[in-house]
Amino acid sequence: MTNGAATNGGAAGPRPSTIFFLSDYGLRDEFVGVVHAVLRRLVPGAVVVDLTHDVPPFDVRAGSEALLRAVPFLGSGVVLGVVDPGVGAGRRGLAIEAGTLRFVGPDNGLLVPAAEAAGELHHIVELDVGPDVSPTFDGRDVFAPAVAALCDGTPCEQLGEAVPVDELVRVPRPVCERGRTSDGRRTLRAEVTWVDRFGNVQLAASATALPEDVPVLTATAEPVPGKAVAGWGGTEIVSRVRAFGDLGPGEVGVLVDANRRLALVVREGSAALRLGVGTGDLVTLSW
Amino acid sequence: MTNGAATNGGAAGPRPSTIFFLSDYGLRDEFVGVVHAVLRRLVPGAVVVDLTHDVPPFDVRAGSEALLRAVPFLGSGVVLGVVDPGVGAGRRGLAIEAGTLRFVGPDNGLLVPAAEAAGELHHIVELDVGPDVSPTFDGRDVFAPAVAALCDGTPCEQLGEAVPVDELVRVPRPVCERGRTSDGRRTLRAEVTWVDRFGNVQLAASATALPEDVPVLTATAEPVPGKAVAGWGGTEIVSRVRAFGDLGPGEVGVLVDANRRLALVVREGSAALRLGVGTGDLVTLSW
Amino acid sequence: MTNGAATNGGAAGPRPSTIFFLSDYGLRDEFVGVVHAVLRRLVPGAVVVDLTHDVPPFDVRAGSEALLRAVPFLGSGVVLGVVDPGVGAGRRGLAIEAGTLRFVGPDNGLLVPAAEAAGELHHIVELDVGPDVSPTFDGRDVFAPAVAALCDGTPCEQLGEAVPVDELVRVPRPVCERGRTSDGRRTLRAEVTWVDRFGNVQLAASATALPEDVPVLTATAEPVPGKAVAGWGGTEIVSRVRAFGDLGPGEVGVLVDANRRLALVVREGSAALRLGVGTGDLVTLSW
Repeated sequence: MTNGAATNGGAAGPRPSTIFFLSDYGLRDEFVGVVHAVLRRLVPGAVVVDLTHDVPPFDVRAGSEALLRAVPFLGSGVVLGVVDPGVGAGRRGLAIEAGTLRFVGPDNGLLVPAAEAAGELHHIVELDVGPDVSPTFDGRDVFAPAVAALCDGTPCEQLGEAVPVDELVRVPRPVCERGRTSDGRRTLRAEVTWVDRFGNVQLAASATALPEDVPVLTATAEPVPGKAVAGWGGTEIVSRVRAFGDLGPGEVGVLVDANRRLALVVREGSAALRLGVGTGDLVTLSW
Repeated sequence: MTNGAATNGGAAGPRPSTIFFLSDYGLRDEFVGVVHAVLRRLVPGAVVVDLTHDVPPFDVRAGSEALLRAVPFLGSGVVLGVVDPGVGAGRRGLAIEAGTLRFVGPDNGLLVPAAEAAGELHHIVELDVGPDVSPTFDGRDVFAPAVAALCDGTPCEQLGEAVPVDELVRVPRPVCERGRTSDGRRTLRAEVTWVDRFGNVQLAASATALPEDVPVLTATAEPVPGKAVAGWGGTEIVSRVRAFGDLGPGEVGVLVDANRRLALVVREGSAALRLGVGTGDLVTLSW
Repeated sequence: MTNGAATNGGAAGPRPSTIFFLSDYGLRDEFVGVVHAVLRRLVPGAVVVDLTHDVPPFDVRAGSEALLRAVPFLGSGVVLGVVDPGVGAGRRGLAIEAGTLRFVGPDNGLLVPAAEAAGELHHIVELDVGPDVSPTFDGRDVFAPAVAALCDGTPCEQLGEAVPVDELVRVPRPVCERGRTSDGRRTLRAEVTWVDRFGNVQLAASATALPEDVPVLTATAEPVPGKAVAGWGGTEIVSRVRAFGDLGPGEVGVLVDANRRLALVVREGSAALRLGVGTGDLVTLSW
């Protein structure tokens, strides 16, 4: 919706000048700063937009969900995504072109959902790696130079050997199942894809998965095996609302969030704490 | 003091090109990154300066104090402030012009103290909101586009209907009272407006509220009702100092901080932990 | 290795336009944002790269190590480093030129290791301080204006009085000692210089301190006096590996990290937690 190649303003055509950077590097150490420094040196004219660097360490799936949520708002540019538990262990580095965006990062599933949301995948390549590269910091040594080359106009296909699309590593898609209870109520069983800073609980279910004319429903949490649910045992009454402000104090609601997904919320409070759920848990809504 | 319209360098006049962004979005999620991406797409030439995004969630007053402290150093540009518990609940979105700055954000008191410190308020308008806007992320969908329009030269008054200044929502001003004890000592009772990362305790009292010739005084904490004070019961001896380095180990001092406010401090330590106080508590200084 | 004066692209020569900013200000408060705002006003054309602002409060040595690690990747520009427990207590403010970089910050040892790694030190000066400067926020009031002057082409030597190189305050260099045990095994006793977000334990020992043909060794922690070691008493078997992926689950390895230092690591886990060590502890490797 927000893509517009005109954004980059270059008369010379599709030269991207915005880099969108997401990682699990955190901001405590200088990892992110050093990658910025390398990009600044290699492509001084580019602007780097940090999407987030607080993806939980090694959590490829959480990172892929964050990229997927962000992609409709990125216009054109190069996405640098690094959540990379397999660095140095032989996994491929990738560059992918999709829509007005290009994606650079590890071949572990991180990039694919966002890239597919951006458009048809083209020019998928395995990044060439130089001989003198440290095996522990590909963000600095492999991915940042590839991003810089793309910004400078090098086509994706010149960065390495082509990779067939069906060879890409993919993360399992989150659970989202419709069903019926034994007494005939309709159900939606969906995975928690995100608990944000405020405690809002995003489900792997789009706005249309719940009919608009259901004012009240129930929510039941089902933790991932081996993980206890603190503070919530049973079933909770949930009001269908449009915004946080439609809820009374302590009330749990379900709304269509800013990514057009269903989310469980509490007004000025944490639905995640209230319901005792976290990312990866399953929630069944019934009505 | 630091305002200079020449900063933006445009020959065309008052076109702002710096955006100062403060919020309670945190950096764990991609909220801030997505707003940056929207701004980058809409006004590619602007530079975004992040003031902070770690305002405590929903704490409009803490956010308003941070903006107020920052405003003397901002030169010219557009301030985007988002601490917005009422998003989607009918509160107005605002644009305000004051001095060399313009302010965009919710009408909940967040912006007003800073805007008044920047200059007389002009062109206060209620932002028009489009029909397709999500009711949960006005920073992305309403405020960022308004900021972009201001950066592109749209006058404030074209962004919506005028709002009378006396209709603006305001946060209560922090407590600051002078008095005397029964035995004739002078007192200053002031609210804690900020505990910073280092544990320095800023009071709602300007440098001039304490005479310069008082070398030693006492400080007594008075917690907000219903909130216990950990680790401090009584009254503490406090030295008037110029800088942290004038204090001995473990000694508590009061100084004029970098915002020309009185602050209780400990050298290389946390005065907040030492005194058991937090934002919103009241402290009485006596001499 | 990555220095290249051409980076800044100015035809006019050595005018730096990149500012590398490291501090212990944290991102919770608006300190970093205000310094950015001051820099934006004074040198609107410069780009600020944040290296990190989460150096532990007052930890000059940790900050100096982070700068030292970053410096090979900075190209040319001005480094602004602020970890400054002595602010307002009479310590000097410095500007130093070294290689393609200039350094601005307090004279407490923070800058020197990085500056020496960048090149021979030239034009070391004590920054002049104006009369109206707050004694608690030199980053904003003294260092940022000095950085701006350097970016604008003012030579270092015009910012203050020359300081002899042997008068610079220095932090103690971290321990790194080779030796032998009583039974003839070789040992390397090295200080922990960094525990990163992932829990990797960097030692003050270069890649060459450990022969490449030693596949297995032992590691013994020796905590700094007065500090308990949680969870680790004795001696641990450690495999020499090239990358995280060469380790099995729960196995501890030693590798050459992205700064060409030896580091103790666990695959997708925290070696620091596994071994119970933190920054400043000593580890002896034996083989």
